[in-house]
Parts: sequence; structure tokens; C-alpha cells
Amino acid sequence: MQRVATHSFGSDNHSGVHPEVLAALTAANEGHAPAYGADAVTARAVAAVRAHLGEHAEVAFVFNGTGANLVGLGLALHPWQHVVCATTAHVAVDECGAPERLLGTKLVELRTDDGKLTPDLVRASVTGVGDEHRTQPGAVSITQSTELGTVYTPDEIRALAGTAHALGMVLHLDGARLANAAASLGVGLAATTTDCGVDVLSFGGTKNGLLGAEAVVVLQPRLAAGLLYARKQLGQLGSKGRFLAAQFAALLEGDLWLRNAGNANAMARRLEAGVRGLPGVRIAWPVQANAVFAELPPALARAAEAFGAYPPDEVSGLVRLMCSWDTMPEHVDALVAALAAAAREPAALAGPGQV
Amino acid sequence: MQRVATHSFGSDNHSGVHPEVLAALTAANEGHAPAYGADAVTARAVAAVRAHLGEHAEVAFVFNGTGANLVGLGLALHPWQHVVCATTAHVAVDECGAPERLLGTKLVELRTDDGKLTPDLVRASVTGVGDEHRTQPGAVSITQSTELGTVYTPDEIRALAGTAHALGMVLHLDGARLANAAASLGVGLAATTTDCGVDVLSFGGTKNGLLGAEAVVVLQPRLAAGLLYARKQLGQLGSKGRFLAAQFAALLEGDLWLRNAGNANAMARRLEAGVRGLPGVRIAWPVQANAVFAELPPALARAAEAFGAYPPDEVSGLVRLMCSWDTMPEHVDALVAALAAAAREPAALAGPGQV
Amino acid sequence: MQRVATHSFGSDNHSGVHPEVLAALTAANEGHAPAYGADAVTARAVAAVRAHLGEHAEVAFVFNGTGANLVGLGLALHPWQHVVCATTAHVAVDECGAPERLLGTKLVELRTDDGKLTPDLVRASVTGVGDEHRTQPGAVSITQSTELGTVYTPDEIRALAGTAHALGMVLHLDGARLANAAASLGVGLAATTTDCGVDVLSFGGTKNGLLGAEAVVVLQPRLAAGLLYARKQLGQLGSKGRFLAAQFAALLEGDLWLRNAGNANAMARRLEAGVRGLPGVRIAWPVQANAVFAELPPALARAAEAFGAYPPDEVSGLVRLMCSWDTMPEHVDALVAALAAAAREPAALAGPGQV
Amino acid sequence: MQRVATHSFGSDNHSGVHPEVLAALTAANEGHAPAYGADAVTARAVAAVRAHLGEHAEVAFVFNGTGANLVGLGLALHPWQHVVCATTAHVAVDECGAPERLLGTKLVELRTDDGKLTPDLVRASVTGVGDEHRTQPGAVSITQSTELGTVYTPDEIRALAGTAHALGMVLHLDGARLANAAASLGVGLAATTTDCGVDVLSFGGTKNGLLGAEAVVVLQPRLAAGLLYARKQLGQLGSKGRFLAAQFAALLEGDLWLRNAGNANAMARRLEAGVRGLPGVRIAWPVQANAVFAELPPALARAAEAFGAYPPDEVSGLVRLMCSWDTMPEHVDALVAALAAAAREPAALAGPGQV
Repeated sequence: MQRVATHSFGSDNHSGVHPEVLAALTAANEGHAPAYGADAVTARAVAAVRAHLGEHAEVAFVFNGTGANLVGLGLALHPWQHVVCATTAHVAVDECGAPERLLGTKLVELRTDDGKLTPDLVRASVTGVGDEHRTQPGAVSITQSTELGTVYTPDEIRALAGTAHALGMVLHLDGARLANAAASLGVGLAATTTDCGVDVLSFGGTKNGLLGAEAVVVLQPRLAAGLLYARKQLGQLGSKGRFLAAQFAALLEGDLWLRNAGNANAMARRLEAGVRGLPGVRIAWPVQANAVFAELPPALARAAEAFGAYPPDEVSGLVRLMCSWDTMPEHVDALVAALAAAAREPAALAGPGQV
Repeated sequence: MQRVATHSFGSDNHSGVHPEVLAALTAANEGHAPAYGADAVTARAVAAVRAHLGEHAEVAFVFNGTGANLVGLGLALHPWQHVVCATTAHVAVDECGAPERLLGTKLVELRTDDGKLTPDLVRASVTGVGDEHRTQPGAVSITQSTELGTVYTPDEIRALAGTAHALGMVLHLDGARLANAAASLGVGLAATTTDCGVDVLSFGGTKNGLLGAEAVVVLQPRLAAGLLYARKQLGQLGSKGRFLAAQFAALLEGDLWLRNAGNANAMARRLEAGVRGLPGVRIAWPVQANAVFAELPPALARAAEAFGAYPPDEVSGLVRLMCSWDTMPEHVDALVAALAAAAREPAALAGPGQV
Repeated sequence: MQRVATHSFGSDNHSGVHPEVLAALTAANEGHAPAYGADAVTARAVAAVRAHLGEHAEVAFVFNGTGANLVGLGLALHPWQHVVCATTAHVAVDECGAPERLLGTKLVELRTDDGKLTPDLVRASVTGVGDEHRTQPGAVSITQSTELGTVYTPDEIRALAGTAHALGMVLHLDGARLANAAASLGVGLAATTTDCGVDVLSFGGTKNGLLGAEAVVVLQPRLAAGLLYARKQLGQLGSKGRFLAAQFAALLEGDLWLRNAGNANAMARRLEAGVRGLPGVRIAWPVQANAVFAELPPALARAAEAFGAYPPDEVSGLVRLMCSWDTMPEHVDALVAALAAAAREPAALAGPGQV
Repeated sequence: MQRVATHSFGSDNHSGVHPEVLAALTAANEGHAPAYGADAVTARAVAAVRAHLGEHAEVAFVFNGTGANLVGLGLALHPWQHVVCATTAHVAVDECGAPERLLGTKLVELRTDDGKLTPDLVRASVTGVGDEHRTQPGAVSITQSTELGTVYTPDEIRALAGTAHALGMVLHLDGARLANAAASLGVGLAATTTDCGVDVLSFGGTKNGLLGAEAVVVLQPRLAAGLLYARKQLGQLGSKGRFLAAQFAALLEGDLWLRNAGNANAMARRLEAGVRGLPGVRIAWPVQANAVFAELPPALARAAEAFGAYPPDEVSGLVRLMCSWDTMPEHVDALVAALAAAAREPAALAGPGQV
């Protein structure tokens, strides 16, 4: 079992369920209800999603982000088409090959500076069009906010949508942390999705205070026909659907999505401010959402692990520090203090074996 | 949206979450915890499963029954092997082709009298062994209790395991309602699984009072190696794993599993007793768990729909009436009274258009 | 290694290559040519197919019948759709589960009297439409001539096409022995395909005197878009494409297809006439193409094995006797004489161990 | 239709069938023979493969290189394992995503200098071992000779096998041009396969003078169990198997494999010598097999197209010139002369629009 501090900066999945969400689950537990999404709570939650993302949105609640990505991408692809994504994308590195296995799709993974694709990168990846020996471009998948804690502006996404559509591709957005991006930009949830031409969206809730629920939101009507079959076939249909839906209703009917994401973002900025000046510390990417990626001297990395952080990445050597909906200033300050203390130790900057 | 009575007999998925389970979720929501099952609640829940099913059991919690079946069966099969199951099996008719799609496996579906496979049926299905043109026998999948509300005895399952193993096949048990079977037989959960030679088990919780959780339990150690990868790749790994596990801990650490299943079974027997004598009613199979399948005159079928029942099956013409962990005698009695009243109407036995 | 008589009645695959086809291969071997079907011989062969099946036909040559069926069916199906076929269909029993594995599709296998589906059978199989738990009807696949040696009339296929289309399904025809069917009916190749509303065709050549080549012929234009990608992705694109095409040109530019198939059919009728009256022999189905299925007393079955026949089928107990493009009257007469001689032996009608 | 010169340097697939192979096909066309590889010619061909590659080799003849790679790799992988290969590998860029689609496997594509993987590259690709979110290393796939015309030495392959095995991976060798590599090195076919620890081999024949045949050769016995099922299920089993086998018998029973490959290699060296000194020409990689990759001024690229060459690669800008078993010195000299003539034109070095 992994050791975790009382408050962990290892992942925004280490936090629990927001009390309002738990209350919504309790409230949804009244009497009997039809299964598989034919219930009143689901109707409310779908309406809440549509209020944010557009009345034409087709919505299906699923269990997790991998499931949402699979269902959404699957709707967009012919068997011989590939998905273009960043090398750092969740679909590429954190889903144990599920897109290849379950959808049979090739991922064309592009190196980026900061986790963000650009129209130029996408265009350069498009070769062999019309050549039967090559997979054909089917979808561009981007993550908002990215796995590196950066955020696309609406203009950037609009440009990507334009590029994708001009190339005959669909734009998929993995919005596991869409709320963090919207909060960071100070815009609504549609501003970097519906309004920019995103075709299919994985809308995340779990990392933003839910117990466990995500939504597939089809914004391009011609892709929606098979949504419910795809969800079922890919193992993502919950029988007591009201309990997935109730979480989204709690998140979206009021401003809980914004409060939670805004707090996590603010704490990440506080954390960045606290560690930026420590000796040997380098912040790897702009802190635009709830993640701080930092190069840390070994003693600091060890100190961070006591606060739930994972060890430095095998390849990049960076430490990822995540803030959650329930991270409080005192949690951040305690981590900063511990890192500062570690930095003051004589051997702080030495690597293993160098002490 | 489907209409549902206050108390529905349409499905045991129409019931909600048992209060003890909801309390367990609240209790699990203390502070931060590692994700993906590396937490203390998961450790407790795994221990609870092992206390029932054997210390060597490998356990992975998943979201739903389709997911459990896919993960479990996937561990047991080479690509060129098929699964033998009943034509009525959930994997065959209620998973939108997920086994074919996600595992690439052929299902060889056998007609049965009562939803139960027999050694003779399995043996008769095994032809073309060694012929490269034919899929080869890989697994036998049975459901306990069956989709028709019948229950295998331990001896019957032991015989199936012997037959399967002698043929080089694995025995998979879809235990979406395993607790109902055990309660019906008056035995423990191992008595029709571990003790009979079952190799892989889908252990159901959702239909027995949970919010939404199932477990893949690998009882044959040589099949367990890829369990965690398969769960992740098939989209069944929950990030905040403690909330899946907490449900199973609540179900299994005490006797909640038995109380819930025992009540559902008792209510089904009460229901059967109440309707058996009504004119035109025929009970299709022995009521051994929480399901009553009945041939109902049209007026009675319509009356049952007012209590949440689905319309008669397109093919068999039967109406399925399901009891739940929270079905109470007065719910049953109200349904029986309504059916009896319908039976007393002059045109009760006439079909559509015959009135 | 399997023992085979000089002339085998075990399969029409046991015959070799017609001399005109071998000559065509030699002729095609002049100089260099573009690969992958961009050559002049392929253009000629496509034109020959279109001359028979319609100018709008899209044609792709592939290696074998399994490949043709996979490519063709794959074009017609959404992931959540199933294929309806006979229990005896090649796709169901002779492709080692390739449709399930490579296409991820469920096969709904229907029992027939004589290997032929009917509109009533198809309609009865269509249940659960619109229910996300069920695979949805996608394609009807029939075989012409069937695996049991029977032949659909044009009217029968037209009725199946009408039924399929009315149900929103595509009609796929496995024409591994299409030429035998056409020869038997005395009609052209389009008469039971293009003219009846068949949407996708696997057009067989190998069993009719080719070295090894089949064609996927898409007759419904809206299904043709991905044909070349599907062929490549499913491993069915030959690099030196001229040598697949040359075989079809040889078969179709003149009347070789008809001479070969007509001979095989005539020999099957001669064989049937010769054995029908022997004691203990029962002809199982009308001999309408090049197959004779017969119940044979054990001594006769053994005698047939000396002529290359496979042992009686594990399940049906029937012996299949196939005639080929090169079967000659004296081959048939020798087999008939041997069976007649066996029938005259004292113990001819006894089973093993009864002598 | 693509224009091709009488003798094309566009691909070694543009050449036809060696006369000895055609003669072997004619010879194999005597009488009837069992289908699916149970015939005497197949037995001879398997023996011929074993004589070269080892008596323990399990051999299955298939239709094409994509098929061989799929069958071989499929035997080596669990569903959650990935294949490490070069970005230039045939499996990565020339199979229309077949490995992802048909095997469900992720390809981890590594950039190389010259198409050749190294132990360091493989080791560096291995991260996330034991992490259920990541696919796990399953196989290393290399191509010999490579898609860039370079050749691995036996020591290089031995080192890769050692690295792969130490990491728990299988070494797969795509030997579409294995004969060219062996001829180039002056060694036998086993010297860079069996003798180096290669586990599974795709042994190519089509590019070396066959009509169309490849072989899957399993050198690691524990991987061989499902070979025949995998071949059938992946659509690669030919019914008249003797005609695939006869080609390999013709290639391997004598020294035809060496004569053909040796000639193609010699012609490539002659071609390289002829063009190396032309103004503006740069040879991209060592010419070690039958391919010359060159940077050509536009006028030369156009001149090469008249000899069947494909236009410069979209990404690298290089022109690939391939020699075949039947390329003759005068073919090479004519091409060289044409390129030299083009180089003498005033505008030879100008790009499009610059003239």
C-alpha cells in the first residue's frame, strides 16, 4: 500500500467527495427509479450539462475518463483512421493501451513543448492521405487543461478545430480537468469547447470533487447516433444511473464546478509562488491550472514524497504536485515550509550517492 | 422517461442504495487516500472478499457486471477460443456484444430448459477440437443465480467444473446475483464458487444494495497474472477506488449480503405464492432466487406494468417480476392484489383487439 | 499428412488450377508492373467483374474467402451491430471466429432446414431494436450456393434483400461458389446478386479452378468508401496484384467460370444418381450445386474415405462429397462402383464393433 | 493507373515471378492434393525452411508480409503489452494500422539514425514497468534488411535479443528481405535469425522472386502452440496450400534465394556507384541491401519517376530506388545515364517554379 499524507499533493484523485455531492447522492437515494438513465435525476443532470454546453449536446454519463475517451473517440473514427495527440496525452500514456485495444485505433503521438498541440503540428502529421497503406487522419485529441498543467486559450482551440475540420478530422477534447481550464481562463465551460468547434468532449467530474463520474458530450450531432450503444458495449453503462447523474447535477446546477476548480487552481498558484524561489527548483511549465511540475533537488523530492507526491518521473525527472478542490492554504504552506527546510539542509542539492 | 411506480418490480436495479452502504461511503470520505486501489479501505474490502472466498483469491473491484465479465473472461481465453454459455446468459444477450467486440471472442450459445447449463450440454457443444477452422473450447460461463431465477446446486456446479476442466476449459461464473443463490441454498458464498472449482468469478454487488460496484475474483491462480492490466485496459479501474471498495466492505464484513439477498428471495416466494393461483397465470420456472417469470393474461401484464414491470418479452411472452433488497411484504401484497383485481375483470383473459 | 486419392471428393479445394488460369498467370508475368492493383491486368479484371455484375461495382481482389467475407462485412457494420446467418454458414463455423475477432461482431446464427435463410427467419431474429443492451441488426449474410449444396432462387434472394433493407440491414452474399449457383440456375452471375439487391458480395474463384483468389464486390455504392483501406488493414492486399487479377480475368473474360462450375454441378448430379439407390444411403438435401451430402452406412463411409472424403460429420453424421471443375465421369463412376461394392459386402450396414 | 517503365526501380514488388518459381507452380499442379497444408509439397517446403532455420522451427505459410507480421506478433503478446519498433518499420507505417486493429497492440515507435534499433534505444523505451496504467513491454520488432536498406550484423541482432530477453520481451524479426540481408552479409539465413536468438520471424519471399508467399517461422517453441489457429483466424490460411508452399520449395531447396537476393544487392551497389558522384545527389544511408535512398535534385527526381520511382517522400524528401531479382546491369546503366543527363540540364538543380 502506498503511503499518503493526510493531505496529498500526489494527485487530484487523492481527494474525496465534496459534501454537496455526497448530499446529492443521499437525496437521489429516495425510493425506486428506472435504471440505465431513464430516471428523473438523469434528466436533470443532462439538462444541467446542456445549460452549460448547448441544447444540442448529446450526453451520456460514464464511470471514468478512460471510458469517456473510448466512447467519444469511438464515435468519431473509421477503423482505418488514427488519432493525433500529444505524446503526453492521457489516451497515449495512461490508459494501458485501451484505445488501441478496444477501438483498434492507432495513436499518432506528437512531441510538444508544453502538452499542447498546434495547428502546425497537426498539419505536419498529416501525410499519406489517400494511401491505403497508411492509416488516415480521423481525429485530433487534445486535453484541456493539459496533463502538464497548461491551458489552451479559446483562440488556440478554435484554430485547432479549424485545422482539424479542414483536414476532414474531428476534434476531441479530453476535459478531465475542463473546469480547471475554464476557471483559469475566467470563462464558461462552453468557451473552450462548444464555442470553439469541439466535436466530442470527455467532461470530467471525478478530479473536481465527484465520487466517480464523467460525461461523454457529443457536440457534433452527426456523431451522436450510436452514443448509447457505444457506452453499453464499452462497459460504461451504470445500472443505477441516477447515482452518476446526481453527481453531475450537484456539480453543474450551481457553481460547485467553479468553486472546486477555482480553489485547486488558486492553491497551485500559491504553491508555485512558494517554491519558485527555492534553490535548485525550476518550474517546468506555466502553472495555469491545478498542477505544478517542478525540477526538485533530491532532498526536496524526498520531502515532497512525504506529502503524497510521486517520485520524480522516470524520463523527465520532474515532480508533479497537484492541488485539489479541498486543498487549503495551510496544506500548501506546510508543503512549502517542508521543501524550504529541505533546501536548507547541507546536502539538499546532492543526488543519491553523492551525500 | 420510463414510468416507475414508487416500488418497482421491473428490476432489482430499480432499488437504491442500502443505508449501511451509504454510511460506509460517507465514512470512507475522510481525508485523502491513494488512488487506484492502493488505499486502506480497498485492503479491508479485499480481505473481506477473501474471508468469504478464500485467501488465495485475487480481487479487483470494477464498475459493473459487464466490466466484471469482460475482465474475468479475458484472462481465461486465447484469441481463438470460444465461450460456451446459455442462450439466456447476460454475456450473450445483455451486453450489446461487448464480449465479441472487446475480447474478440465467439460465444457458443446453448439452449437450456431453465437457464442452467449441464455437463451433457457442454460436452455436446465441443466439436472440431484441433481443427484450425474452428474456434476451440476455452471457457464455460454460467450465471448463479441464473437470468431465469433458477439456482445451481453445488453438485451441479462441481460437475460443470469437472466437465470444463476435463475438456481443457475454464469455468467462469457470472455471480451478479451470487448472494441470492447462496441465500437460497442456505450456504456461504464459497459453496457454489471456490469450493466447486470455479476459476473466475464476477461477484455482483449492485443488484444487492450497493450504489454500483462489482468484483472480479480470480480463484485459479494461474489466471491472475494480468488482472490489474486487464481491468485498466478494459476501462474498469476507478480512480477513487476507496468508494468502490467501501461498498463491498459494507456488504461483506457483516451479514448485509445475506440480509439483502434473503429478503429479496423471500419476497419473490411470497409473490409467487400470491399469483400462482390466479386464472391464466403460469409460473415459468422454479422461483429459487429473487425473480418470478410468469405467463400473464394481457390485463394482468398491463397491471404489472403499473408496478414497474417491463412489457412481456418479445420472444417468450413472459413477464419478469424482480424483488429487491428493499421490497417489503406490503409491496408484494399490493401487486398481488392488483393482479387479482385485474383477473376479476370480465375481459382479463382476452388479448389485444379481442375485447 | 492426410491421405488423398488421385482424384478427391473431399473438397473442391483439393483440385488444382485450371490450365487456362495457369497460362494467364504466365502471361501476366511479363516485365514489371505497378504493385497493389495499379496495373493493367487488374484494370482488365475489374472490367470483367463489372461486365458481369454491373458498372457501378467496386471491386477488390483478395486472397481467400475468409478475407473476402471480413472485408465485405466490415464495410457494412457499426460496432454495435450483428450479422444474421445460418448456423451452417462459413462465417459461423469455418473461419475460426475471425468475424468476432477481427470485426468484433456478434453472429446471430439461425437454424435452417437446408442452409438457406428465409425472410421469416430473419424477421423473427430481430428483437430488442433500439435497446442499448442488445446488438442491433446490421447485416444478413447468406451463402450461394450454400454450404449444404443448395441454391437460392433469384426470388428467394430478392425477398431476403427486401426484408433486410426494410429492417435497415445490409444483405451480404458469400459467393464462394456463386458460379455453381448461377450454372445450376442457368442464369448469369448478376441474377442472384446485383439484380436482387445484394449489397456486398464475396465472389469466389479458388473453388472454381483458380490458384487462389477471391473478390470483394461492393454493389451498394454508399458502402464502398473504405474498401481499399479495409482490404489493406485486414491483411488482404497482395503486393503483386496482377497475379490475383489475372486469375479472375481468365475466369470471367470468357466462359471458364461457367464451364468449370457447370462441370462440377453435372458431376454431382451424376454422383447423386449413382448412389441414391444404394441400400442404406439417404441424400440429405437436394443436390443443386456441386455437393452431395449423404447418410452412408459405415462401410460406404469408409469406402468414400478412400476417395478423399472426410469422415462423417461429428454432429450430423453425414458424409460430404464434393465435385470439382476437373471431376470426370470416370472419377464419379469409380466412386459409385466402390460404394456399390461396399454395399454388397455382408457387413456393410453394421456400425463399428458390430461386425 | 500508375505509369511504370518496362523495368521499374519503384519497388521490388514491381518485378514478376522467377521462371523457376512458375515452373514449380506448374509442377505442383498435378492432380488433387489435400487442402490447408496437409499436402506433400507443403511438407517439402517446411523441410526446406527447417534445413535453413533449424529443425525445431514451426512454419506456416501465409499470403503477405502484413499477414506474417500479424500472425507472428500475435503469438508473442498479451493484450496489455506493446511492440517496440522503429518509426520507419513496416508494421508502423505500411500496414494501415493492422497491428493496432487486429492485434489491439500499441506500437512504441522509436526514432533511429538508419532504421536500426539498438539495445540502448530499446532499454530507454522501457518505462512504467509494473504500472497498470501503462502498456508493458512485450516484443521488439526489427526489420532485416531494414526499410532503409541497411543491414543488421549478427552481433547487433544478438545484442538486441539479449536485451529483449533480459527485459522479458520477445524478439520479432520482419524478414521481408531477409535473403537480401543474408546475401549482403555473406551468411546463411539462420545467421541473423535462429543463431542470434530471434523468437519469431516473418520470412519474406514475394520481394525475392515469388508470386506471393511469406512464412511465419516460430523459433521459440513456447510461442508456437497457437500458430495454426492464429493463421486461420487472421485470414491467412490458403486453401490450396500447395501453391504457397511450392514457391518456398523453389526458393529454398536450391540457391535461388541467394541468386535472386544477391543480384538485387549487386545492382543496388552498381546504381549507388553510378549516381553517387552526380551533382546535388546525396546517398542517405549505406547501401547494404537492394535499396538506394537518395536526395535528388528535382530534375533528377523527375527523371527517376520515368523509371518507375515514386515521387520524393513527403517528409524526408528522399527518393527510394529499389533493385529486384531481375534487375540487369543495362537497366541500372540506363537509369544512371538518364539521371546524369538530367543533371546536365541547366535547370537541373532548381525546384518547382524556380525554372
